[in-house]
Amino acid sequence: MSELRYDPIRRSWVIIAAERGERPTARLDRSSTNTHGPVESCPFCPGNEDMTPPEITSIREPGTAPDSPGWRVRVIPNKFPALERDVLLERSSRGLYDVISGFGTHEIIVETPRVDQQMDGFSLKHLKDIFIILRNRLEELKKDKRFQYVMVFKNYGAQAGCSLFHAHSQIIAIPVIPNLISAELASFREYFRAGRSCLMCDVIRQEVEDDERVVIDSEKFIAFAPYPSSFPFEVRITPKDHSHDFAGTTDSALGQFARIVRGTLRKLKKVLKDPPYNFVLHTAPPTFERAERPGFWKSLSEDYHWYLEIIPRTTRIAGFEWGTGFYVNTTLPEDAAKLLREA
Amino acid sequence: MSELRYDPIRRSWVIIAAERGERPTARLDRSSTNTHGPVESCPFCPGNEDMTPPEITSIREPGTAPDSPGWRVRVIPNKFPALERDVLLERSSRGLYDVISGFGTHEIIVETPRVDQQMDGFSLKHLKDIFIILRNRLEELKKDKRFQYVMVFKNYGAQAGCSLFHAHSQIIAIPVIPNLISAELASFREYFRAGRSCLMCDVIRQEVEDDERVVIDSEKFIAFAPYPSSFPFEVRITPKDHSHDFAGTTDSALGQFARIVRGTLRKLKKVLKDPPYNFVLHTAPPTFERAERPGFWKSLSEDYHWYLEIIPRTTRIAGFEWGTGFYVNTTLPEDAAKLLREA
Repeated sequence: MSELRYDPIRRSWVIIAAERGERPTARLDRSSTNTHGPVESCPFCPGNEDMTPPEITSIREPGTAPDSPGWRVRVIPNKFPALERDVLLERSSRGLYDVISGFGTHEIIVETPRVDQQMDGFSLKHLKDIFIILRNRLEELKKDKRFQYVMVFKNYGAQAGCSLFHAHSQIIAIPVIPNLISAELASFREYFRAGRSCLMCDVIRQEVEDDERVVIDSEKFIAFAPYPSSFPFEVRITPKDHSHDFAGTTDSALGQFARIVRGTLRKLKKVLKDPPYNFVLHTAPPTFERAERPGFWKSLSEDYHWYLEIIPRTTRIAGFEWGTGFYVNTTLPEDAAKLLREA
Repeated sequence: MSELRYDPIRRSWVIIAAERGERPTARLDRSSTNTHGPVESCPFCPGNEDMTPPEITSIREPGTAPDSPGWRVRVIPNKFPALERDVLLERSSRGLYDVISGFGTHEIIVETPRVDQQMDGFSLKHLKDIFIILRNRLEELKKDKRFQYVMVFKNYGAQAGCSLFHAHSQIIAIPVIPNLISAELASFREYFRAGRSCLMCDVIRQEVEDDERVVIDSEKFIAFAPYPSSFPFEVRITPKDHSHDFAGTTDSALGQFARIVRGTLRKLKKVLKDPPYNFVLHTAPPTFERAERPGFWKSLSEDYHWYLEIIPRTTRIAGFEWGTGFYVNTTLPEDAAKLLREA
């Protein structure tokens, strides 16, 4: 049974997702991977639908039954979830320590039935379908007011923490707001309060003007290497018109989003020779309101401006970076953007 | 030429340490390692002192000259420093972005002349000497008021980001305070203000009482698996009597510190089979004072309680963990502590 534990010194929440009774080092043995195993034993391959929990939703050929082949995109509960929805949401404390029961959800989007394709190889229509199904899941999960944030991310390649090579993304809904999202909300809010515009809208304006870090500039979206990139070849993709919530994106905009995401992934693949990467969606929490402690907001969140962060994992995260939250990046974002633009 | 860039959205500083003119992917090629190369080409081996910049200080046999063999511990400037001291400390802004010149220092403590020993294998006297020299460097660097924080850390093993196997630690002094240290300072300060004691002193009391997560309990120091461990088998080591600054530790206390650090490393080595690990020292900034922006404090810092954080790198840091600051740990700290205690 999982739980969320609060660190009163570092001021952050951690999910402790250990199975009582399991050998303490058991989960450490599940290794990361860069290759596809045999189709027979891949739980994400068509024909093996019974190796996963029943599907939540899918895009499939008319006339095919759930949990059988015929799907193009399939959303399933994670078989080894970090958090579970049928747990009572309870807060308590043990002396100095605050703890929340392991309430949440953990879903997998199996992006394709094909073992031989990754996101950069999908057709634009297929990638648009993935983002539509993702948006719909976010909309659906937002209805449950116990979720304070929904994390969407992808690990591609062993060094990025991928433990199953068949193309997939993950969705974890949690009963608190992560620190970094709280900090971002505060940044947007204070910038607005100071009588200015949206901080991200202004960042976009400056990026277009500076024209040094832009990777792809399309009609509705822009991809750029952030001025303060924490990692070599980090890229942020964001809508050019103010939009706080990914879940509010229209089908047609998601088509354009698919194009810029695929374009960026292809450039990264070319320049960095198929690097492992993570992407993380940064989007407004359903609702939030200020409270005494980080992780508990509840109010309108329209100051936020959503973005997708793509991080090629070309370097190891070393000790002081974890220990301080302070990163060293050995590649100028301006150089990275130039190489990617030209690729 | 390096610089520190501020992220106005995430609210954190990043060091961009790229050489202009260097191929943008050049530093990515410097790979991590788990083995010692040939002694002839190891810049940290005795006899090769001319492969490094001149030493800053050392512990060496009487009568031997600096930058020649005869040393037992040697402190040198990093040949590829993230920051440099002969740079003018300047703050400026480029539109929305704040930037600080790459002022700082980056030093290496070569812990031993021997290629065949790592920290867990040192004699207690030798390890004490290392900590004394480290304390002295911290004391010395504190005198330069331009440094707002001094980071001390160690990367052991390829997966922990180690790029040179010969045993060494690193010291980076920076002109800002890292976010996590600011958050910790605020935690200690608010706890004190609420009319209570030191938060860490109370954590220690609770850990001793709960007796579930203690790894080693000695006269002056305690090692425990934190209740909100972010990583499997994470351990914090801290003085039992309130002490804000590692630089204020006496020689005799450093002897006891050496014993508990070595004891913990040996237990981790036994249970996790010689895991890669990072350690990071968390200690009070020289001085700090509240200011509008994270990273700029200046005032007394005696509310802080220093600790050493040891993180075995048994798992990959995945996407959402970087993107949100929110960690999933698959090992109960109570189970980890039990295994380590018994080892």
